Amino acid sequence: MANPFVKQYLMTAGPTPIPPAVSEAMAQPMLYHRAPAFIEVYARCLEGLRLVFQTENDVLCFAASGSGGMESAAANLVEPGEPALVASCGKFGERWVELCDAFGARTVHLDAGWGNKVEPAELERQLRETPAKVVFTTLSETSTGVVNDIQALTQVAHDAGALIAVDAVSGLGAVPIPQDEWGVDVVVAGSQKALMCPPGLGFASANDAALEFAAGAGAHRYYFDWQRTVKGQRKDPPDSPFTPAVTLFLGLDVALRLIEEEGLEQVFERHRLLGRAARAAVRALDLELFGPEDENANVVTAIKLPEGIDGATVPKLMRDRYGVTIAGGQGHLKGRIARIAHCGYFGAFDILTTFAAFEMALRDAGHEVELGTGVGAAQAVFLEAGVPVAAPA
Amino acid sequence: MANPFVKQYLMTAGPTPIPPAVSEAMAQPMLYHRAPAFIEVYARCLEGLRLVFQTENDVLCFAASGSGGMESAAANLVEPGEPALVASCGKFGERWVELCDAFGARTVHLDAGWGNKVEPAELERQLRETPAKVVFTTLSETSTGVVNDIQALTQVAHDAGALIAVDAVSGLGAVPIPQDEWGVDVVVAGSQKALMCPPGLGFASANDAALEFAAGAGAHRYYFDWQRTVKGQRKDPPDSPFTPAVTLFLGLDVALRLIEEEGLEQVFERHRLLGRAARAAVRALDLELFGPEDENANVVTAIKLPEGIDGATVPKLMRDRYGVTIAGGQGHLKGRIARIAHCGYFGAFDILTTFAAFEMALRDAGHEVELGTGVGAAQAVFLEAGVPVAAPA
Repeated sequence: MANPFVKQYLMTAGPTPIPPAVSEAMAQPMLYHRAPAFIEVYARCLEGLRLVFQTENDVLCFAASGSGGMESAAANLVEPGEPALVASCGKFGERWVELCDAFGARTVHLDAGWGNKVEPAELERQLRETPAKVVFTTLSETSTGVVNDIQALTQVAHDAGALIAVDAVSGLGAVPIPQDEWGVDVVVAGSQKALMCPPGLGFASANDAALEFAAGAGAHRYYFDWQRTVKGQRKDPPDSPFTPAVTLFLGLDVALRLIEEEGLEQVFERHRLLGRAARAAVRALDLELFGPEDENANVVTAIKLPEGIDGATVPKLMRDRYGVTIAGGQGHLKGRIARIAHCGYFGAFDILTTFAAFEMALRDAGHEVELGTGVGAAQAVFLEAGVPVAAPA
Repeated sequence: MANPFVKQYLMTAGPTPIPPAVSEAMAQPMLYHRAPAFIEVYARCLEGLRLVFQTENDVLCFAASGSGGMESAAANLVEPGEPALVASCGKFGERWVELCDAFGARTVHLDAGWGNKVEPAELERQLRETPAKVVFTTLSETSTGVVNDIQALTQVAHDAGALIAVDAVSGLGAVPIPQDEWGVDVVVAGSQKALMCPPGLGFASANDAALEFAAGAGAHRYYFDWQRTVKGQRKDPPDSPFTPAVTLFLGLDVALRLIEEEGLEQVFERHRLLGRAARAAVRALDLELFGPEDENANVVTAIKLPEGIDGATVPKLMRDRYGVTIAGGQGHLKGRIARIAHCGYFGAFDILTTFAAFEMALRDAGHEVELGTGVGAAQAVFLEAGVPVAAPA
């Protein structure tokens, strides 16, 4: 056993912590995927996913990473040789470019720049200049913490006669994206963020317009073919066309019940509070957020590290000395920012622990910090909110 | 809790039972996939997989079903518009046809028929008639229990200047397929059969010739692109290009250790014994095997159900009355055969339990059976073998 003085805390927007009840469910004996005991779980998951996606669509499930869910969107929506418009603002948005290229699109890239939002007016201008049938963009850009205004971007895409496909891998279940209400054509997600499960399930919720378009689009696909999975999931009882990741569904079933018990609105409210507390801590420490100050940026808090210290050491010190795993910057932001995730199974004291370790690591790295300053500011936010902020049991 | 008089036994070649130590590992707290604690596990898995694949290749890992591993082979090896030769003998072999079609091949289908082996001479004839650069075939055809002679088929493919890609999803780790020794170009597998893990990891072990060919082949791929995953896995430390299915790797790490401790040759020997005992039970019950009597068919035992009873009820009775889940026939074999799987975490008494339940269900279904006949024949095989036949602890 590792040193118990240094207990482990996972604060990354990669895999996120798993509630004990979810872990327990996944340790149950294996089930045959066509046996009634599993089909019951599977059917309940398909229904519960609709609640989180806020949709009447079939939420298509793939044994895959979140990027596999994205690949399904590219494979089903890209028409080789035709234009596809990617509106990005960070590393994961740029993945859409690579995907569209790989599936043969003439990709047009509207790059808002890392740390900025995609501006609806810019998308409008770009679509006038280079019309496309599908726009690919990002809800929560994990590399920077930025959360885009998907409602507005959807409106712009639709006004230009385009469909919109949104990578909501790190955002779904943390910040609102009411798919049907906003008319978002495709929402892609993964199991390992706010859905409080291990990585290994990729999701794509495609509306009728997107399914119809996909039926006529021609990139290569089989495992990720939406039509095949729609057909299986619509059977009575539902039947996955390929062996589903049984243990992950057993976990998802419990996680979806936890979300339902907490209530989706309360889940969003909890994430708002966690984000607000994190931002208050950053300000109290006289540090700057990376990206715009935004009441909706409640998935990942990205912090500019102070000049004059070796920024890359901060996440390392936090992990190795204090047991708190956060992420640093990716690509050109390596060593320049720290990213603290709070999407999923997180409560108030996760934020306090993290900022306590952050303050200590900053001091270790040679930056002057009055210990407790950030923590105190976050505490004040939680106290002021006066609502229960614990994650579901 | 379900009725403890009817304990549950999983004898399908879908997901297979999980050793308790594997389940425990997967219930550990989540790890960040770039943290040293996970990278250590990941690197050990990549090394351990080489042992089971009996290769020096990088065994490429995907968060996917076994069919996702197959899709990776099609996406990387099919040249749209060019011929691809599929040599099949059942449902999973036919999946290669669908995959090759989906990725744009001019697919040539050598269909040996369900329950037969693919004959090397037939493949030779077919390759002379319709040359192709890649042959796709199956090691263990789960729909029928047939195990093909991959060594001979590889020789034939190579003599004709073709690469060979083998679906070994249900066979790898149960029956020998020494990849490097036989020169098999691509071996595809999944986590949920003889590797004793839950479904959700797909594998593709491609040799240099296959990787080189793939670099020049042109189907659409990104998530399943071999080059991207090779590049990540060859980094020091290795780095999955997409978020890996963390819990499944935690389990695989333990499962691979169990295989190593038992010894791969002993694992094969155990499967030989389980298969031999199952076939002895079938004969003692005066029933026929589906497919040829074959000392190598040690993954799934397929049994022709007696005439005059409703065959489809047998698996159902076994499951509902006795808690033993086996599979019936697929496609046109529905109701005609029963399939008992013994690939993975299986010991002698799993076979005895299964045939005991099979005898009871046959009698329930109206077929005359002397109870204990099949069980006794299997017992005799185990006693005669005089070796420890327990699965690893």
